[in-house]
Amino acid sequence: MNYRVVFQTLGKVAIALAIMLVLPTVLAACLAEYSWWALLTTVGISLVIGLPLTFALKPKNNVIFTKDGLIIVSLAWIYVSAIGALPFVISGAIPNYIDAFFEMCSGFSTTGATILEGWQIETMDKGLLFWRSFSHWIGGMGVIVFLMAFESGSADRGMHVLRAEMPGPIVDKIVPRARDTAKILYLLYIGFTVAEAIALIIAGMPIFDSVVHAFGTAGTGGFGIKADSIASYNAACQWIITVFMILFGINFNLYYLMIMRKFRQAFGSRELWIFGGVIVAASTAISVDLALSNLAYTQSASDAVRHAAFQVAAFISTTGYSTIPASSSINAFPLLSKGLLFMLMFIGGMAGSTGGGLKVSRVAILFCAARKELRRVTHPRNANAVKFEGKILSDETLHGVINYFAIYMLLIAGTFVVLSFDGGAGLTVEANITATVSCINNIGPAYGVVSGGYYMYNWFSKLVMSFAMLLGRLEIYPILIALTPTTWIKR
Amino acid sequence: MNYRVVFQTLGKVAIALAIMLVLPTVLAACLAEYSWWALLTTVGISLVIGLPLTFALKPKNNVIFTKDGLIIVSLAWIYVSAIGALPFVISGAIPNYIDAFFEMCSGFSTTGATILEGWQIETMDKGLLFWRSFSHWIGGMGVIVFLMAFESGSADRGMHVLRAEMPGPIVDKIVPRARDTAKILYLLYIGFTVAEAIALIIAGMPIFDSVVHAFGTAGTGGFGIKADSIASYNAACQWIITVFMILFGINFNLYYLMIMRKFRQAFGSRELWIFGGVIVAASTAISVDLALSNLAYTQSASDAVRHAAFQVAAFISTTGYSTIPASSSINAFPLLSKGLLFMLMFIGGMAGSTGGGLKVSRVAILFCAARKELRRVTHPRNANAVKFEGKILSDETLHGVINYFAIYMLLIAGTFVVLSFDGGAGLTVEANITATVSCINNIGPAYGVVSGGYYMYNWFSKLVMSFAMLLGRLEIYPILIALTPTTWIKR
Repeated sequence: MNYRVVFQTLGKVAIALAIMLVLPTVLAACLAEYSWWALLTTVGISLVIGLPLTFALKPKNNVIFTKDGLIIVSLAWIYVSAIGALPFVISGAIPNYIDAFFEMCSGFSTTGATILEGWQIETMDKGLLFWRSFSHWIGGMGVIVFLMAFESGSADRGMHVLRAEMPGPIVDKIVPRARDTAKILYLLYIGFTVAEAIALIIAGMPIFDSVVHAFGTAGTGGFGIKADSIASYNAACQWIITVFMILFGINFNLYYLMIMRKFRQAFGSRELWIFGGVIVAASTAISVDLALSNLAYTQSASDAVRHAAFQVAAFISTTGYSTIPASSSINAFPLLSKGLLFMLMFIGGMAGSTGGGLKVSRVAILFCAARKELRRVTHPRNANAVKFEGKILSDETLHGVINYFAIYMLLIAGTFVVLSFDGGAGLTVEANITATVSCINNIGPAYGVVSGGYYMYNWFSKLVMSFAMLLGRLEIYPILIALTPTTWIKR
Repeated sequence: MNYRVVFQTLGKVAIALAIMLVLPTVLAACLAEYSWWALLTTVGISLVIGLPLTFALKPKNNVIFTKDGLIIVSLAWIYVSAIGALPFVISGAIPNYIDAFFEMCSGFSTTGATILEGWQIETMDKGLLFWRSFSHWIGGMGVIVFLMAFESGSADRGMHVLRAEMPGPIVDKIVPRARDTAKILYLLYIGFTVAEAIALIIAGMPIFDSVVHAFGTAGTGGFGIKADSIASYNAACQWIITVFMILFGINFNLYYLMIMRKFRQAFGSRELWIFGGVIVAASTAISVDLALSNLAYTQSASDAVRHAAFQVAAFISTTGYSTIPASSSINAFPLLSKGLLFMLMFIGGMAGSTGGGLKVSRVAILFCAARKELRRVTHPRNANAVKFEGKILSDETLHGVINYFAIYMLLIAGTFVVLSFDGGAGLTVEANITATVSCINNIGPAYGVVSGGYYMYNWFSKLVMSFAMLLGRLEIYPILIALTPTTWIKR
């Protein structure tokens, strides 16, 4: 491994984190909030770590291999979560460090699962709330992508680093150079975020709330600033968020194609049509299910459609916001709605979006692989090719996706077993299953007693879930390789 | 497709079913039970179907391809379940045909899920109870294997038919000829079943109960004859059943090796050690969990160990018997026990046993594939081989197992979605998840309100679960291919 480059890059990440933290620090200072010095202290700590690593280390060469790229990415994400958690601990808002680490892993991984209870969120300093949601925004597009987009001068770190952070089975470069790709992605990302914030302000949401929720939507995170998430905002705000959750669940390359006026190519995306089809089908079924249920707030057709569309968008984009009134919870949803939303958790957004989950294209390729295997079983001698997005899927892609799926399911099983050892009061099998699936797919809410908060789990479960969230966000391999002892110990 | 051979074989299966039905018919007649003529009528029906198919069809040749083998197996299993259900309908014990079909699919697939309520089981005719449990015994080793073992004269149908019915990723012939393999397997099977029945009689169980429970254990089925399954029998009987559930979860080839005095080879089986290790680890954890719980019947150490070992054996062997007193249910189990038992549902027995589930070897190979993929991700240019049972796993085996796993998970997801549409009173997400997993893995019991019975599901859900059980027992492909329209319609 090229340790020098790895740790120098980590130093740059530390400096970048300090720069990111300046925003909430200034906000807290302007509002004369007690937490401003906790944020400032963290800026200092990250600079103290970052400056020597960046400038004292002189790499002999800049050559990095795939493994180095994966290690850089995983260490960067663990670093920002570990240090990003300090303001909460120092200010006393979240006294327990593991809780704060969980909260930041949830933030950067864009999960939105929280260990806070409703009243704790509503009484928290605005600076800290801003930081929580800002971590979604950074995490959505990627920490290293951020570095690449805004760092000038140094060598182009190339696609394997970008690839390790970008979701989906096949990562296309938009333009030949990785750094230019990163810049275009961030420009689109900023544009959409600003558009959402403005739309929310026009619809009547306060400015601070609009910005924070735009961050949460853009990263498909889901941290809110109210105990009842989005439920207390008006219907127009809820519809705006629904639309933007779907928009952020779409592959950003398609937007670039549209800007380049390649509409046919953009709308020819098979994945886009599957994504849209699943949303329409699930929203329709859940609308009917909610309207026929005995829930007081979904009796009119328009309410049923609004809640159904919102929850479908929130689950498939893996954002996890909710419009369910505080008097109720997702546990009260009728069975079909709960079942379908649970399935959407696995699908997730499109490849190349900020959404989590398996990704629509992976699920589609899994079906292709299943069809191919069935044909192989009946006609062992005929090798049949399967196509997706107009191209024949190579065996490498097929096996890559299926192997990924197998590892993903084994990790879900493993995490579930660990959570089963937690003796937390009121936990159920349903809560543990949905919490596991919710964390690995970066969604946030879970059924059972966990709905809304994860505070009843013990510290070990929280730590495991923290890594599960990062695993999910970075698509397993970087974190798994960083956690493998043989990566670090030479035999 | 060679339709003539397919339907001629189906005719032989029909005759075989009629012969199997003679046993319960005679029993019912001796006991002067009302249901004897319902059983006799079914014998007649199956002969009327079977005789012309067997003797009127003159196949031009006996050549059959893989696909024909798969179709024969799936049609045979659907046939025995569909016709085997008639005695229940004709006698009025289960008036609804779909319910009876579910019950027989559950019987032959060795699932043990029942749509009957406790009092219905306890008041049922002994002839019918015998038939229910006898279907487990037939289904455990396989309908076609039965035919091959006992049919004399006709051509050896070869390994691809045997393979379609035998569980596990790699099927070894014990001896060169498929029919001899079938005979050896059935002799072992009969020997173990008789041994268990005798042991149970010695331990104090009534003769009829002993035979019926030996059938249920041998096939790893789980149909009992009491509302509380095995709970009301003494501890010795429970321990005997625990041991035999584990024995029937072991690859039968290993017993043959032991008889041939190849002990080193038998005990060198990696799969055996994993199977044993999982049983010991899970039993230990669940014993402690039960002893520390507030369940009244697991407070002494010996009770806790007995119930834990029994439930672990029942779940991993996919038998599904229970020792939980009627006053309680598995829903009252502590969380860790429920979580671990849920995971055991997926693992199942060893390849080549009568147990269901994924099979221990498939799970082990999945882990091997995961390790190989991780190595490939870090070192894309180094192709690493992985070993299992001392042999290097071919890419074909690895991909076969992973593809199987992917299709299996997609089917679980699909079945779960269908069940979600069921508006049955009191159903929960947990009930639907565990019922789906329980059916596909041929276990029987599920958590939530389904514990013990499936009667609250509607007819469509029951039909889907019936096919899910057969899918699981035949390891997916035969049934899936039989249900594919293009198998039957030439394009």
